[in-house]
Parts: sequence; structure tokens; C-alpha cells
Amino acid sequence: MDYIFNLAIILLVAKIFSIVAKHFNLPEVVGQILAGLILGPALFGIVKDSDFIDKVAEIGVIMLMFEAGLGTDMKQLKSTGFVSTLIACAGVFVPVVLGSLLFMAFYGFGTFGSEQMIKGLFVGTIMAATSVSITVAVLKELGVLNGKVGTAITSAAIIDDVIGIVVLTLVISMKDTSVSVGMVILKAVLFFAIAIGLGVIINRIFKWMTDLYPHTRRVSIASFVYCLFMAYIAETYFGIADITGAYVAGAVLCNLPESVYMSRRIEISAYMVFAPVFFTSIGLKTSFTSMNLTLLLFSIMFVIVALVSKVIGCGGLARLAGFSKQESLQIGAGMMARSEVALITAQKGLAAGLLTSEFFTPVILLILVSSFVTPIALKVLFAKKDEPQPVKA
Amino acid sequence: MDYIFNLAIILLVAKIFSIVAKHFNLPEVVGQILAGLILGPALFGIVKDSDFIDKVAEIGVIMLMFEAGLGTDMKQLKSTGFVSTLIACAGVFVPVVLGSLLFMAFYGFGTFGSEQMIKGLFVGTIMAATSVSITVAVLKELGVLNGKVGTAITSAAIIDDVIGIVVLTLVISMKDTSVSVGMVILKAVLFFAIAIGLGVIINRIFKWMTDLYPHTRRVSIASFVYCLFMAYIAETYFGIADITGAYVAGAVLCNLPESVYMSRRIEISAYMVFAPVFFTSIGLKTSFTSMNLTLLLFSIMFVIVALVSKVIGCGGLARLAGFSKQESLQIGAGMMARSEVALITAQKGLAAGLLTSEFFTPVILLILVSSFVTPIALKVLFAKKDEPQPVKA
Repeated sequence: MDYIFNLAIILLVAKIFSIVAKHFNLPEVVGQILAGLILGPALFGIVKDSDFIDKVAEIGVIMLMFEAGLGTDMKQLKSTGFVSTLIACAGVFVPVVLGSLLFMAFYGFGTFGSEQMIKGLFVGTIMAATSVSITVAVLKELGVLNGKVGTAITSAAIIDDVIGIVVLTLVISMKDTSVSVGMVILKAVLFFAIAIGLGVIINRIFKWMTDLYPHTRRVSIASFVYCLFMAYIAETYFGIADITGAYVAGAVLCNLPESVYMSRRIEISAYMVFAPVFFTSIGLKTSFTSMNLTLLLFSIMFVIVALVSKVIGCGGLARLAGFSKQESLQIGAGMMARSEVALITAQKGLAAGLLTSEFFTPVILLILVSSFVTPIALKVLFAKKDEPQPVKA
Repeated sequence: MDYIFNLAIILLVAKIFSIVAKHFNLPEVVGQILAGLILGPALFGIVKDSDFIDKVAEIGVIMLMFEAGLGTDMKQLKSTGFVSTLIACAGVFVPVVLGSLLFMAFYGFGTFGSEQMIKGLFVGTIMAATSVSITVAVLKELGVLNGKVGTAITSAAIIDDVIGIVVLTLVISMKDTSVSVGMVILKAVLFFAIAIGLGVIINRIFKWMTDLYPHTRRVSIASFVYCLFMAYIAETYFGIADITGAYVAGAVLCNLPESVYMSRRIEISAYMVFAPVFFTSIGLKTSFTSMNLTLLLFSIMFVIVALVSKVIGCGGLARLAGFSKQESLQIGAGMMARSEVALITAQKGLAAGLLTSEFFTPVILLILVSSFVTPIALKVLFAKKDEPQPVKA
């Protein structure tokens, strides 16, 4: 029965702290992560992270990404697609280079192709994958998710996930010769080709069904089932993150009139149970044991480099691509968030012998700090928009 | 990732079969249990029952019972409370007696106080606890959940759960002297006293909160958190089924104007994910291996006695208490459903050495058959109501 108690206390404390956060003009997700820190081993240790919590959290993040996909403005995406790809590339390149240099500055430089350099590259790769879920939640809260900047961030983060996976596999294959880089790239290309190709047919089927049975349970359930299958297929058969699959599923259905109805049903299920568990679980995973001075200094620098490199890479490219100075900063800030993809990457490095487990501390710290800093930065950067504009007469 | 695939396929097949069931004028829950049989080891073995599925299913049944509680008509309950208690007593007494006789007829009679008699009593006790969740779902579908008969069934099933627990503990304590019967009864009485006493205060707090913040997320989440805590506390500290706690939590809030809003949020979360998983999981638990002729015959008789004894006990008492013949049959039929409480009872008997694991087969068969028969019987018995009535002029 512990899972019932854990769920109850997570929902209660997450709601209380998201109300408190809102009261202090902070994003609600910050409150929910704080709830996890307070409940978890970092502070009171009332709730232990469990397999059940992880699974509910994963469904939560899948729901959030599906909602984001359902809300996609296709016209916007088409107009930002090329630029988003460039933003994503810059947002992988700069962190990988700076992350490698940071690691080698702390733990010794190596020649090109040496194990030390590969380890450095790997540490940079951990910084590569933006986790858009927190940003999506904040942008949604601010009401700018489907604007020009919101769409640029969301699509860049999706593309950057794919590039990140390719880079990860490249780096691991530099150590291990059993993984074929060409295969990885082929699989990613195949996934998007099949998802979009089948997407056209699935879109038609849903159009037909929603015309026949508008505003029915079967419509919402069928859309959620499609989302789950896409998440599963992406991760299991194509090596692409499940949340990417869920986002693509949402994007396939986003032009249907019924997408608003589906989205609302998913939203209610998400906020009643799944989404608070996801954000709280990030706090639950954090504890501050096994620290030493070098690791502490490295962790702090790791977080700073990870955040700044995204702002330089993504924000810089956005500025070059013609976004305004403020919009570029918003994009840079929006891309700073890291989450479970960084942890998954780190775990893969551990399995490949590229990393020791102590390096989980900087990764968790990055997730935590970026989860706090990204929402606050976005809120500040978007608040400026609310200042009275000169009225065109 | 298997849990994502399992969830997707369960939701898909459960929805398809509930649409098919509806098409053939069968209750939707029958379709969902069928989906479990088809997906599970009984037929294709695509989905294996798992810890995750069981937990999601448990939350599903808690949600269903909370919804039932929120929909309670207090005036109706007050008018049926005394009669419901009598119905519940008769609905425990008749199955326990007939179940004991059945067991001893198959496996040999024993003198009073002998191990054989205690085993017989235990088999009868498995039959005692009505699981109202399926009935609640069907009554809700038929739109008669909060009528005179619906309230009588729901409250009788709640009371019968408590009596069933007391009888279970009595029977186990006949074998094991470490459990005190007085303590069990005291705990049950204490739970209801505390739940109702605190309920008055909690009702006031929710009244104050819903007046301040009507139609907000915090209202729905707070009510669900309260429901989860009550479910947890009932089972962990008072030895009462979690679903009883959830029902009581709903009943405490049922007179608030905002109860409809809360109920709707819970309902959406339930039908999108949790409820179909619960009903499908019953089908998933069923397999038809390890059968022999004696066990087969015993199982068939066990099911027949379990169903008929509830109709005789509850229906008979309802008739004596002044319900019409048709209403009495509806009450008897509504009390026939058995579910996870029967399984939990059986598991406790296994732990106490009163039962061998082969006796799970008749229990599962009872759950399955009663899950099929109860909805169909209710649908037939309530359909008669729809015949044109002479108009009073």
C-alpha cells in the first residue's frame, strides 16, 4: 500500500508548493521539483523513488510531450523548421566542444583519439540533449508555447534529441566497434520517414473517426493509445527517445478540429496524477552524498558550462538567423533545460565504461539547476514582452 | 518500455471490446474483462499481469469507489441504512453457511471446531465479500446508481465488506490464536467513528476551499489526495479494504455543490487510463491450467452456490424488508459480484494455511463468472423498468 501513500503525499506536497511557487511568481514546476527535494533523500526522506513512481513519471512526460505535439502550429513549424535545425546543431556543437575542454581541464588533456579525449567528448555529449518538457510546461503556463519562439524551441529540442542520439552513438562507437554509426543515422531517418508517411494515413483515420464520433471517449482514448504506441516504437525499434515519439504523434493529429478536445482529456489526466509525479520524481532522485572538493568544483563548472553553452550556441545562431536580441535570449534560455535524457546518456556511458558513477552528481545537479533556472529565466525574459507597447494608431 | 506497450494494448483492446459489448447490449465492463482474457494467458498471452498493472488497476478501483461515494445520495442512504445492514448480514450469513456445507460435501465433513470445519467456514468466507465495483459501474451505466435500489446495494456492499473482514478474522483466529477478534471489531468500529468524526471537519474545510476556489485544479487534486489517504489509512491501520476507505471519502464530500466537478475530473482520469486497466487485469489473472475433474466440479458448484446464496440472502431479506419482488431480485443480483476482495481473502487463507493454491481456480472463476453474470442480470432486471408505465392523470 506504500505506493498509494507515496502518490497521495506527492500530489499533496507538489500541489501545495506549486501554489506557493505561483504566489512568488515562480513557475509551478519549480514548486513541484522542490516538493521532490523536500520529500526525497535530499531532505526528509519521506518518499523513496520507486519503479512505480518512475513508470508513472514516464507516462507523465509522455503525456506532456503529446500535449505539446497536439498544440503544434504546423504553419509556424514549417516556417521555423530550417532555422530550428540550425539552432539544434549549434546547440549540440557548442556544449560538446566546451564540455570536452572542461573535462580535460580538470582531469588531464589527451591527444586526438585517446581515451581521455573520448571521455571528454562523452561528458560534452551529456550536455547535448535539451529536455524540452520543463520548457514546454513553462511556455504553456506563460501562454507562448505555440508562438514563434515557442515553436522554434520545441522543434529545435526535438531535432537536438535526434542529433544528440547520433553523437552519443558516435562517441560510444569510437570506443566500441560493435555499434555502427551509419545504422544509427539510418534508423533515425527511417523513424521520421515512417512516422510522417504513416502519419498521413493515421491523420485521415482520426479525421474520419472524429467526424463520426466527435467529443467521445473513444476519440480521446484512441489518440492516447496512438501516442503510447509511437513512444514505444520510437524507443524500442528506432533507438529514439519515447518522448520524441509522443511529440510526433501529437504533431500528426494537431491539425484536426478535435485536437483541442483530445488535448483537454490528456491534460486532465496529466495534472490529476501523472505530471506532478514526473516533476516531483526529479527532486526525489537527488541526494548530496559522496561529494569531494574536486567533484564539487567540477560539478559547478559543469552546470555553468552546460547552461552557458546552450545560450551561446542556440541563442547565437538564432540571432544570426534574424531573431531579435530578446527572442534569441528566450530561445537560448529555453534550450538550457536538461532532464532524463541527460541521465539516460550518462547511464549509457557508465555501461560503455566511459564514465564512473560519481559523475552522476554533476548530471543530477545540472538537471536540478537547469530545472530551476530555465523556468525563472524564461519567465523573466517573457515578462518584458508584457510591458506596454506603443499603440499603433 | 514493456509497460508502455502493455498500457497501450490494454487501453486499445479494452475500448474496442467495450464498444462491441455495447453494440450487443452488454455492459462495457464485460467487454473490458473479455479484453483481459484475450490478451492474457487464458488466450493469446500478449500481456502478462505485472506489478505495475496491478498498482494502476488498484488506483482504478479506488477511483471508481471514490466516484461512487461522491455520488451518494445521503438522504437515500439514511433511509436505507438500517435495511442495508440487515441485507449485508444476510448476504454474509447465507454464503458462509452454504459455502461451508459445499466444501465439506466435496472434501469430507468435520465435527464442530475441527480443522475440516474451519476450512469449510473459510471457503464460505471467500464468498462473503461482495465487490461492488462492477455493480457500481453497471448501475452508473444504467443511470440508477443513486436510486433507492442502487443506494441499498452500494451501502449493503460497504457494510458487507466490514462484516466479511470481521468473519475472515474470526475464522483465521479459530486456527491462529495471535489475532484477537475483539481487536478486529474494535478497529472496524474505530475506523468508521474516526472517519465520520473527522469527516465532519474535512467536509467543512472542503466547503470553505470550494467556496473560495470553485472549479480549480486544487479542488479536484485535494479531493483525490483525501481519497488516497483514506484508502491507505483504512487498509494499513484499520485492516479495512482500501476501496472502503475511498468510498467513505467520497461519501464525506458528497453533499458539496462542487462534488459534481470533482467527480468529473476523477471520472476522466479513470476512463482514460485507470478503470480499463482494472477490469482488464481481472481477465489477465485468469488461466485454465492445473485443472482436474474434482476441482472442476467443485469450482462449478462453488460459483453456483456463491451466486445463488447472495440472491437468497440479500434478495430474500430485501423482500422481507418491504422491497418489491423485482427490486429484491435487483438487490440480490447486484450483490452477486465478487472481485479482488475474494482474491485477497483467499490469499490470506493461503498464508494462514487454511487453503492450498489450487483453490484459487474456483475463486478466479467466481470473479470471472460473477463479473459476466452480474452486469447481464442487472441489465435484464432493470430493463423491465423501462417498459411504459401507466400514466397517472
